[in-house]
Amino acid sequence: MRVITFGEIMLRLSPPMTDRFLQTHSFDATYGGAEANVAVSLANYGIPAAFVTKLPAHEIGQCAVNELRKYGVDTSMIVRGGDRVGIYYCETGASQRGGKVIYDRAHSSISEATVADFDWQTIFNGADWFHFTGITPALSQNAFEICLAAVQAAKAAGVTVSTDLNYRKKLWSRETACARMSELVRYCDLVIANEADCRDVFSIESADTDVDSGKLNKSGYTEVAAKLSERFGCTRVAITLRESISASDNLWSAMLYDNGESYFSNTYPIHIVDRVGGGDSFGAGLIYGYLQKMSPREALEFAVAASCLKHSIPGDFNLVSVDEVYSLIRNGGSGRVQR
Amino acid sequence: MRVITFGEIMLRLSPPMTDRFLQTHSFDATYGGAEANVAVSLANYGIPAAFVTKLPAHEIGQCAVNELRKYGVDTSMIVRGGDRVGIYYCETGASQRGGKVIYDRAHSSISEATVADFDWQTIFNGADWFHFTGITPALSQNAFEICLAAVQAAKAAGVTVSTDLNYRKKLWSRETACARMSELVRYCDLVIANEADCRDVFSIESADTDVDSGKLNKSGYTEVAAKLSERFGCTRVAITLRESISASDNLWSAMLYDNGESYFSNTYPIHIVDRVGGGDSFGAGLIYGYLQKMSPREALEFAVAASCLKHSIPGDFNLVSVDEVYSLIRNGGSGRVQR
Amino acid sequence: MRVITFGEIMLRLSPPMTDRFLQTHSFDATYGGAEANVAVSLANYGIPAAFVTKLPAHEIGQCAVNELRKYGVDTSMIVRGGDRVGIYYCETGASQRGGKVIYDRAHSSISEATVADFDWQTIFNGADWFHFTGITPALSQNAFEICLAAVQAAKAAGVTVSTDLNYRKKLWSRETACARMSELVRYCDLVIANEADCRDVFSIESADTDVDSGKLNKSGYTEVAAKLSERFGCTRVAITLRESISASDNLWSAMLYDNGESYFSNTYPIHIVDRVGGGDSFGAGLIYGYLQKMSPREALEFAVAASCLKHSIPGDFNLVSVDEVYSLIRNGGSGRVQR
Amino acid sequence: MRVITFGEIMLRLSPPMTDRFLQTHSFDATYGGAEANVAVSLANYGIPAAFVTKLPAHEIGQCAVNELRKYGVDTSMIVRGGDRVGIYYCETGASQRGGKVIYDRAHSSISEATVADFDWQTIFNGADWFHFTGITPALSQNAFEICLAAVQAAKAAGVTVSTDLNYRKKLWSRETACARMSELVRYCDLVIANEADCRDVFSIESADTDVDSGKLNKSGYTEVAAKLSERFGCTRVAITLRESISASDNLWSAMLYDNGESYFSNTYPIHIVDRVGGGDSFGAGLIYGYLQKMSPREALEFAVAASCLKHSIPGDFNLVSVDEVYSLIRNGGSGRVQR
Amino acid sequence: MRVITFGEIMLRLSPPMTDRFLQTHSFDATYGGAEANVAVSLANYGIPAAFVTKLPAHEIGQCAVNELRKYGVDTSMIVRGGDRVGIYYCETGASQRGGKVIYDRAHSSISEATVADFDWQTIFNGADWFHFTGITPALSQNAFEICLAAVQAAKAAGVTVSTDLNYRKKLWSRETACARMSELVRYCDLVIANEADCRDVFSIESADTDVDSGKLNKSGYTEVAAKLSERFGCTRVAITLRESISASDNLWSAMLYDNGESYFSNTYPIHIVDRVGGGDSFGAGLIYGYLQKMSPREALEFAVAASCLKHSIPGDFNLVSVDEVYSLIRNGGSGRVQR
Amino acid sequence: MRVITFGEIMLRLSPPMTDRFLQTHSFDATYGGAEANVAVSLANYGIPAAFVTKLPAHEIGQCAVNELRKYGVDTSMIVRGGDRVGIYYCETGASQRGGKVIYDRAHSSISEATVADFDWQTIFNGADWFHFTGITPALSQNAFEICLAAVQAAKAAGVTVSTDLNYRKKLWSRETACARMSELVRYCDLVIANEADCRDVFSIESADTDVDSGKLNKSGYTEVAAKLSERFGCTRVAITLRESISASDNLWSAMLYDNGESYFSNTYPIHIVDRVGGGDSFGAGLIYGYLQKMSPREALEFAVAASCLKHSIPGDFNLVSVDEVYSLIRNGGSGRVQR
Repeated sequence: MRVITFGEIMLRLSPPMTDRFLQTHSFDATYGGAEANVAVSLANYGIPAAFVTKLPAHEIGQCAVNELRKYGVDTSMIVRGGDRVGIYYCETGASQRGGKVIYDRAHSSISEATVADFDWQTIFNGADWFHFTGITPALSQNAFEICLAAVQAAKAAGVTVSTDLNYRKKLWSRETACARMSELVRYCDLVIANEADCRDVFSIESADTDVDSGKLNKSGYTEVAAKLSERFGCTRVAITLRESISASDNLWSAMLYDNGESYFSNTYPIHIVDRVGGGDSFGAGLIYGYLQKMSPREALEFAVAASCLKHSIPGDFNLVSVDEVYSLIRNGGSGRVQR
Repeated sequence: MRVITFGEIMLRLSPPMTDRFLQTHSFDATYGGAEANVAVSLANYGIPAAFVTKLPAHEIGQCAVNELRKYGVDTSMIVRGGDRVGIYYCETGASQRGGKVIYDRAHSSISEATVADFDWQTIFNGADWFHFTGITPALSQNAFEICLAAVQAAKAAGVTVSTDLNYRKKLWSRETACARMSELVRYCDLVIANEADCRDVFSIESADTDVDSGKLNKSGYTEVAAKLSERFGCTRVAITLRESISASDNLWSAMLYDNGESYFSNTYPIHIVDRVGGGDSFGAGLIYGYLQKMSPREALEFAVAASCLKHSIPGDFNLVSVDEVYSLIRNGGSGRVQR
Repeated sequence: MRVITFGEIMLRLSPPMTDRFLQTHSFDATYGGAEANVAVSLANYGIPAAFVTKLPAHEIGQCAVNELRKYGVDTSMIVRGGDRVGIYYCETGASQRGGKVIYDRAHSSISEATVADFDWQTIFNGADWFHFTGITPALSQNAFEICLAAVQAAKAAGVTVSTDLNYRKKLWSRETACARMSELVRYCDLVIANEADCRDVFSIESADTDVDSGKLNKSGYTEVAAKLSERFGCTRVAITLRESISASDNLWSAMLYDNGESYFSNTYPIHIVDRVGGGDSFGAGLIYGYLQKMSPREALEFAVAASCLKHSIPGDFNLVSVDEVYSLIRNGGSGRVQR
Repeated sequence: MRVITFGEIMLRLSPPMTDRFLQTHSFDATYGGAEANVAVSLANYGIPAAFVTKLPAHEIGQCAVNELRKYGVDTSMIVRGGDRVGIYYCETGASQRGGKVIYDRAHSSISEATVADFDWQTIFNGADWFHFTGITPALSQNAFEICLAAVQAAKAAGVTVSTDLNYRKKLWSRETACARMSELVRYCDLVIANEADCRDVFSIESADTDVDSGKLNKSGYTEVAAKLSERFGCTRVAITLRESISASDNLWSAMLYDNGESYFSNTYPIHIVDRVGGGDSFGAGLIYGYLQKMSPREALEFAVAASCLKHSIPGDFNLVSVDEVYSLIRNGGSGRVQR
Repeated sequence: MRVITFGEIMLRLSPPMTDRFLQTHSFDATYGGAEANVAVSLANYGIPAAFVTKLPAHEIGQCAVNELRKYGVDTSMIVRGGDRVGIYYCETGASQRGGKVIYDRAHSSISEATVADFDWQTIFNGADWFHFTGITPALSQNAFEICLAAVQAAKAAGVTVSTDLNYRKKLWSRETACARMSELVRYCDLVIANEADCRDVFSIESADTDVDSGKLNKSGYTEVAAKLSERFGCTRVAITLRESISASDNLWSAMLYDNGESYFSNTYPIHIVDRVGGGDSFGAGLIYGYLQKMSPREALEFAVAASCLKHSIPGDFNLVSVDEVYSLIRNGGSGRVQR
Repeated sequence: MRVITFGEIMLRLSPPMTDRFLQTHSFDATYGGAEANVAVSLANYGIPAAFVTKLPAHEIGQCAVNELRKYGVDTSMIVRGGDRVGIYYCETGASQRGGKVIYDRAHSSISEATVADFDWQTIFNGADWFHFTGITPALSQNAFEICLAAVQAAKAAGVTVSTDLNYRKKLWSRETACARMSELVRYCDLVIANEADCRDVFSIESADTDVDSGKLNKSGYTEVAAKLSERFGCTRVAITLRESISASDNLWSAMLYDNGESYFSNTYPIHIVDRVGGGDSFGAGLIYGYLQKMSPREALEFAVAASCLKHSIPGDFNLVSVDEVYSLIRNGGSGRVQR
């Protein structure tokens, strides 16, 4: 069994604890990116996972490779070259103060890579699943073309394809996102989104849901998923549902639409350590569930529990084991010390 | 537009995170003091703000100057000389364990300064607003006299004057506080206080409110404000209202009495990072509101939202922008990540 | 007045803050162990307290001695020798992710000590109280024999004896625990346990209580305590009652059974900084209460308030003063800053 | 008296202490750049100094502004806009392992600024001295044009102009550097260079000196300086002379050619803490000396002593006072504690 | 090309910087061990290198695996099981105060592993070189037997075998070391030792050399190497030569005896950051040289330069590239910043 | 055997590593003071040592007590009360940049203590040696009077008395120092000084020695010692001899004049980690030597070796054992790792 993910891994620079950018004298240096996060999660679950990207040949590029290797991700298909490791500055919020992200990712090696950099036929040799997110095609025209080549090659190789819409308004307009993602989603078997993505990218909305308010009308999402499934022919659609009480406390759940049936998960009240990567850890959990032949309900609950735990872990990566996810599902998160 | 604040800036020595004094092997070194905090807030909002004090000529004194300069405060009127930078040791509380402050501020340069050190007529040249708090006159007889000279010069120069009662029982008795503050408040246009200050300094109380219990009878504060306004002729009185659930969680709101009308703000449930400087950030927000010609209600909501955010920021200073305050007022603090 | 506690003190290696083991690049190094924690608490309360153990002659052993000396514990009866300071790796949980402890304590000096290492008659000279927990006899056959010698010598010397069952399933089976603790508890005047210990060690349970769920039927514990008292002849039994909402939030209370009467304490909703040592701080509070001739109810409330505060303090040790405990009892934990 | 410097200020990301990039989990975040470093030095010496650049409007840009303000640099002429704060990753060397710098400065706000961004006539209003280095025109064609506009405006305003050749081979070729710097140096009164710059930029070499070996034939530099002075008409040329024994130990001195006369300074054996910014601190010392009307010899010794001290200070900035520089000149660096 | 190394990897706990054990409140956590260090060096040089050991299945064991993976070492043949990760506490010396190491490695998983744990025939499939050191057989009788099985299997598979004597007097007596190492060295093609090892393990000494004084008579080592070569039939013997001036400064060189010819390297005066792992980095350099078909002199100079650089890097691992080693050989260590 | 030392213990606030005051965002918090440092050294050597002082009753005062207890010093005679723990800010020098100390010790509890605070007769019960330094009587008139009472009581009790002149020009003038120290030194058996103290306090100088240059004429110190001995009747005089090459490198030795005979020690070239407390560690070594009945030469070499090691240890305290000192004397400081 083997999963390929493709995208950008960035250097994440975070002030320690809850310090603001304006206060900090140092940055905690970790690495992350939507698709890299998925690869790390899967490697933690024991699934052979390779991450494909392009990184500079210098030491900072090597640091990103090393961080992936550390957690068991196959980095042998990473292309080295170009000038920059993309960066994102990440300030953690608290109470009524939201977190803040400043991107400095333009001109990164992957955003300036070309279609010729990647030989997808070779990459998909022996692969079962391919995952990318809406961030990658948003990086540049080149990156979009690489994505398109990738999904076409994946389909040709009989590889299951999943995507997470992951709309980033600073990277592209809704119009461009809609045009490009429409081309790509046609090749996808599973589409993952958060409450706002379907509206932002495809103008698909459920009535009675005001996404920005942080209040959710869960049932309306069945309708959204069905429309998406119908429009693009993807049989599975998953939507994460975050209710923000404050930057410190959220309610977290998800729905899964699988071949016409919809499922709603357990809802977890989360005291947040780090919410970045929450959606990615959900995606990884769902991919794991499907790879393990779980039922839709089981896969959904696994994915939601896994991503619930992510919120308690600093950094982008969801460093939990399959046992720990099952333990949360079984025991309900009372947080007893395991001695 | 230009604001002058006057008082003491201290070196704040805090054990990292929630460590107790008895555990720590290092201190986070920041700088703060009621009036300096107000100046920093205003500079953050784009208001030219100068802080007036006296600091030793040595490097630790320079560090305090540099910290103010860093955030854009005009330090050109700070007098250099004397022996000590006042210090306060500050332990952060958590859950049922309250925070703890140990003052080591006696004999600081400002507490031993003399009236001759400051030429208020020059200082108020071009100024619109003067702010001090009840801590400054409590430092020493000299400091009281400097304050008196300052408010008299301010009035003479047509500068609006505000004060925060900020009663500190370790600095002076209720009797002395009442005598001296009575002299000073007569020159004030705006008086700010917390729930307990009016009682402690002027023996003005509302019935049915037990301040020490952390439970508030909000409406009783209209009466308190009216009495204060009447006694000293100040047309505006603001009272911050903190309901302490624990050292980790508070409810935060305020009332404003403006020319006979009283207003109560929205109440924010806060998960606290650092509550020191909360009142100062309220004062700065209110001054900003009045300087920007906001209505009383708008100014009050701005001040409460600004000070709500302060509780999420380590250190004394409220490092938020006007946009961030308005964002909280508009969006209600759900704490979404701003990407 | 003088208290002797006996057991193991370990080096505790904790990743900073909420980092997982897999993320950490450094460990915060503190020292702790059930009985050492009790000794430190009592020394903080002004009670002369000695801790008895065996530690290697090298510097890491000395570090453990120094940490105890720092907090005023008498270390003059610690035997030096053997090879290892026992270690426990301790990961702090958050939200739904429970804390995790990995023990590396086998072959420590104390677990390989022999009966000949300790001259209990001399140790108990002038002592009033002896405390150990179920961890110590679980370390090794030798350690059990030393415990047995200790309780027998204590009884012979007229010293009050208390124990905390502290069942650790990684150290011994329920059967061995039952056999050995039965021998030891016969010498005890006071037995302390948490919700699960009585069931795990002695198969004494209350009906209608599902310990693992984190939900408690408090009143059922009177029955448990009575059975324990009856079986072993100990006149006092205390049971701590933890309701785990999550790894971040717990409800904390306790019951005390004293000469046939049972008392239930106030319940504290705790936002947790560090729950390790919570039970030990309860035990120390109870011993303090009895040594100070408090009534059972007073002693119980003192012990629960003391251990409530422990949860707000990083590390094993409960670094609070008697005044701080009483302040919580009186003021109810609203967490105001003490200036 | 007033000095203007113009160039780029970058975020400097350094692993703690002597850690390599491959080992680090955090970066110390400071700010620096050749011309900003000169401005900070001068502000430390009490000279009003303004730094001109372009920085993004976001918080990281603000952090750079704040760091300059902290040390008293006038930042009021900094233009805000563009996308990036330039970055350089900086690894400190030790023993035989040289330090290592990775630049990530392309596409920074200043490198993409245009001539229209800066109104040099206004900027030079009241100025006495203008300083830039060869790094700035190397950033981009635009940046070169801004530099040209600046030196022309400076000359027109009667402002003294100095430059440091500061050749960076990663920014431009020797040919481009020669062409552009030749245009700019014609406007300069003082040219500063290190041992290699004159050769790299203008192919001016002294016989018998092998720059790369770290061994210097000092006297040959008189010839180099004379040629430079003759070619461009600058009356003053200064060359810093570094003999690298290892990454930990250097010999440091300089020569000054002033109106046909050449002077060689004292040589300092330096145990290095941080050598980045050493040349900039020399330039600032020389500018200070000339502004203070020192003799050439005095100015040279001041500049060398000042830059000797820089090597003992972490970060780019030379945080020393005039008194400290004189103290080194007088007492010879025996390093006694000043109590 | 593929290298296998076998031994123990330990958790290294170091106080920050030059702090003593008695002062520290935290430990920097890195991982290292003689043979693991060799594997990391080789992986850095681009040689496929696998490290074979046994580690517990828990997270601390996983941390050791992850650290190796991070630097590109193949960990797929590591056996998981047993109880402990071996630990060594490591205090860095300075000036006249020597470094100090406290081992806590008894009962580690690898020391309690059995011959049945490792299938050497499979492990050596496709391998070219096998390396172990004298530490591994010293761990336990079992470990010795595993080593013996390994070298025999290596010989049978035509794999080149090297060892480093690495005598540790706390692990075994000279007599046992001599007996066991004599059995093992017979299978070795290359033997590495430091100045004292040959004397301590095999009682082979050169006249006129007092090892403990830190003064060396280099030429006497030719005689030592010849005797060793003759006795055990190994055609190559290398001896590292350390002259300790202080804990901060050493002279470092080596000699190589290859088929009857002896070579002495360049000597490097080193300002030490961390000398642990210096010998291991020499061994790795030598193996690299031989694998790359360097001449004996070239291989020796590569190994000495590589290990010279190691002394400038914190931790056990020598994180340098082939280019960096050659750069030192060519440029002689003047330590210029590489921009 | 029992030693009493008396003086002030201060909170020492040091920027991390070689950071300047102007750069730091935190202070390492340790505790130290000349006489406390001597007590800690002696406790490390196994000599029962008590430190006498006055400290505030608050937590910062308790921290100072705890730090002494940690290292085994008897703190039972410390008086609690007064307002302040004295502070000194301490910046570490490097290369040509000297270290810098800013004192903030005025108004500390001990400087405002009175003669009535200490019952010297009780304190000296069972004591063999009393040590104080010239800093203590310089603190205040009161402190001088307490010192006088102490030395008189010591003499009356037959306790040996030693002092270290420790002249601090910021605490008193040469004249006052001479007057007061002349009164006190009459009671002393052993007087310790550095190169400058005898000149500064008693105007006793040797010809041909320029103290401030850092160059020493060692033999001239015999004359100084003889004069001192003669003037005050103390039979033993010791003078530490520091030759400052730079803030990073010193030569360190000492001379001892004992009953008419003078001895010069070995000279150690020291690479400095922290020189504060160097003289105190010499004094402690000398006291230890005399208490152990060493010959004058042995005592001198012990004291010099001990204080040589101090320079390699961060903080004021000399955390070395008797074995480590002897190891340096025997092995000459080559700094090999002790495994």
